[in-house]
Amino acid sequence: MTCIVQKFGGTSVATLDLIKKAALRVKSEVDAGHQVVAVVSAMAGTTNALVSSIRDLSTTYDRAEYDAIVSSGEQVTAGLLALALQNIGLPARSWLGWQIPIHTSIQYAGAQIKRIETDALLADLKKGFVAVVAGFQGLSPEGRVTTLGRGGSDTTAVALAAALHAERCDIFTDVDGVYTADPRYVSAADKLNHIAYQEMLELAAQGAKVLQKESVEFAMKHQVRLRVLSSLSEMPGTLITHEKEAKVRHSPIRGLAHSLNDELFTLTHLPQNPALIDQIRTLLESHHILIDMIQQNLSLCGRTLNFSFTLPETEAERASTILHEAKDRLQFNDLLRDSDVAKISVIGTGLLTQRSPSNKLFQVLREEKIDVHTVLSSDIKLSVLIPTQHAERAIASLHTMYQLDAEEKERVWQQNI
Amino acid sequence: MTCIVQKFGGTSVATLDLIKKAALRVKSEVDAGHQVVAVVSAMAGTTNALVSSIRDLSTTYDRAEYDAIVSSGEQVTAGLLALALQNIGLPARSWLGWQIPIHTSIQYAGAQIKRIETDALLADLKKGFVAVVAGFQGLSPEGRVTTLGRGGSDTTAVALAAALHAERCDIFTDVDGVYTADPRYVSAADKLNHIAYQEMLELAAQGAKVLQKESVEFAMKHQVRLRVLSSLSEMPGTLITHEKEAKVRHSPIRGLAHSLNDELFTLTHLPQNPALIDQIRTLLESHHILIDMIQQNLSLCGRTLNFSFTLPETEAERASTILHEAKDRLQFNDLLRDSDVAKISVIGTGLLTQRSPSNKLFQVLREEKIDVHTVLSSDIKLSVLIPTQHAERAIASLHTMYQLDAEEKERVWQQNI
Repeated sequence: MTCIVQKFGGTSVATLDLIKKAALRVKSEVDAGHQVVAVVSAMAGTTNALVSSIRDLSTTYDRAEYDAIVSSGEQVTAGLLALALQNIGLPARSWLGWQIPIHTSIQYAGAQIKRIETDALLADLKKGFVAVVAGFQGLSPEGRVTTLGRGGSDTTAVALAAALHAERCDIFTDVDGVYTADPRYVSAADKLNHIAYQEMLELAAQGAKVLQKESVEFAMKHQVRLRVLSSLSEMPGTLITHEKEAKVRHSPIRGLAHSLNDELFTLTHLPQNPALIDQIRTLLESHHILIDMIQQNLSLCGRTLNFSFTLPETEAERASTILHEAKDRLQFNDLLRDSDVAKISVIGTGLLTQRSPSNKLFQVLREEKIDVHTVLSSDIKLSVLIPTQHAERAIASLHTMYQLDAEEKERVWQQNI
Repeated sequence: MTCIVQKFGGTSVATLDLIKKAALRVKSEVDAGHQVVAVVSAMAGTTNALVSSIRDLSTTYDRAEYDAIVSSGEQVTAGLLALALQNIGLPARSWLGWQIPIHTSIQYAGAQIKRIETDALLADLKKGFVAVVAGFQGLSPEGRVTTLGRGGSDTTAVALAAALHAERCDIFTDVDGVYTADPRYVSAADKLNHIAYQEMLELAAQGAKVLQKESVEFAMKHQVRLRVLSSLSEMPGTLITHEKEAKVRHSPIRGLAHSLNDELFTLTHLPQNPALIDQIRTLLESHHILIDMIQQNLSLCGRTLNFSFTLPETEAERASTILHEAKDRLQFNDLLRDSDVAKISVIGTGLLTQRSPSNKLFQVLREEKIDVHTVLSSDIKLSVLIPTQHAERAIASLHTMYQLDAEEKERVWQQNI
């Protein structure tokens, strides 16, 4: 008998009616002969309300207490879904993190899953019970409740799927799958039926919010077949799996991601000393600020360097203070800041097999008369930094050029008949 | 170093501001040199909201899931009070039932405390931490969450006070102590400074809602000194303790209780067979319906009995069905029902030493021209059943007659100077 893990996000269990709908989703897998583990988030809004109470009480709150409080949201949903399942005739019981247990590290409010004891859970599944697991929570080495950080129910689901050798892990959410670009931004965005882990990882890292990066990494590492789908439609969603299984599309490019929340820093007139560049990066990393889109240019005089990079705009003030305090040691002249930048990323394993994957991209941007600040490429990703005002136009043009448009695909498909 | 248990009920932790006030109550005991265990209920309204969600989903709900859901309320308050304590400089941590653990029976939604492991709690108290315990919850032999039934946080507090040999168990609530009668009903009701366990038990059993009967029983059995007081005033409240300590008042009567939620059943024309009366009581008890104020009268013809008793009006419909189904076996003629009855109880250990404690009571009711359906007396309690319409007048007259009125006491006290 194969096991399926189904994860219902906060918007999929936001009301009692939606919880009843989730129960029917579980039932259809049980009726198909599967053992089912359902992982639930807190009902939408619950976690935010609890967090706001915590912040009202204390600004520098104890993270262990934060976890004791916030984990109650998933606990309630787990019990309610178990009741909804029993009400439609399915034996079911709720499981809290400490009951399974899901052992985690001791980092309260941001714990990592270390080990899952599956014996009790498996015994219950074998007896024909649906296991309803409160997501996002675990047990610390001290015997207290931990949480995995916001959105961590995805990770609970994937980790359980790996531990139980599940056939598939279905993530029910409020979108009906992974798109070639953000559908709120690109009207021609097309839903993908398949995508490779690595591609999904890059999409998530570059700003796509469908899935947490950490849960995709976990799925890739443990070869868990992930599916993202809507709890409100009967559409099949998007299957995230290893490359071979995912390679069914004609375009070498899987999708586009964009981020408008970066700021571009430029340190001017540094001496030509590679060690300094390294020091800058290390200094910021020691303050947990990760930089991206790094570029060095010789200055006009030819003796000094300009060093540019992006960082999250939420960290910009802090980073500026840190750099200015180390100005003498780092030997830069000026710090120039530009928050009017957008990062557009083109993602696809198809980039691996192309000789000059950036050629076509530059051609399109040139035709659109869009200046490019910086380019960065990895094996399966090409990112460019451009002025924010051109972002929407750039994405739409690239989406068309890479034959990702929903209509375009239709047309190509018809030609192939 | 002595230990104090403080219990904060739902109305005492209903808002973040009240939680901060509760933290100050804890602080004043810590500042006085005590170790403090704070037991909390769910924020007022939380439990009812959760129960209503459960009932919306399922009428015949699984009690284990009910407990998993409902126990989340106390979990949140425990974390929030711990944070509020930390915020005013006191080391504190929250404890859930399963973390201590508080071992209970397996009766979900109505479990009994069996054993409390105090080692971890004591070690933390010795380190100078305030222990904030989620009330109303425990751990079942199966390793799942149980609850002690509604209002059960009082029992958690008393049981912890017993296990920790606490100096005192303070129950903070929305009234400032135990009164000689319900102050919403009798304007002259007077607050008691002391009351004996046994008297408090009878008051609670007869309808006084200040404390749960079970928690008073537990306190009496384990000699825990209980204090009921308001979290919103600085008044000393009422101390509930053993008889010697409590005997400081001039009146032999401690207080009056009343209940308007009973229904009077009369089964007519039963054969004169004592075994039948026993069968009726046993039948109802087997359906968890407890009867009270039992009376047998010979019928006018002298050959048959009329058998009367009261029961909670919420059980009346069910009891009627059960009795009618057994009509042939029980051999009664008619079942007469009267919901227009009030039970008034006079309570005090002083009744023990009086020769005819009911004489004065009947005299007052006669003077007031109030008919009495039934009388029942135990060692320290006298109850009468009268028509509801006369209840308020009867209580006021008895309250005055027994010299319980607040002004009356003042007058007597002044004469004694």
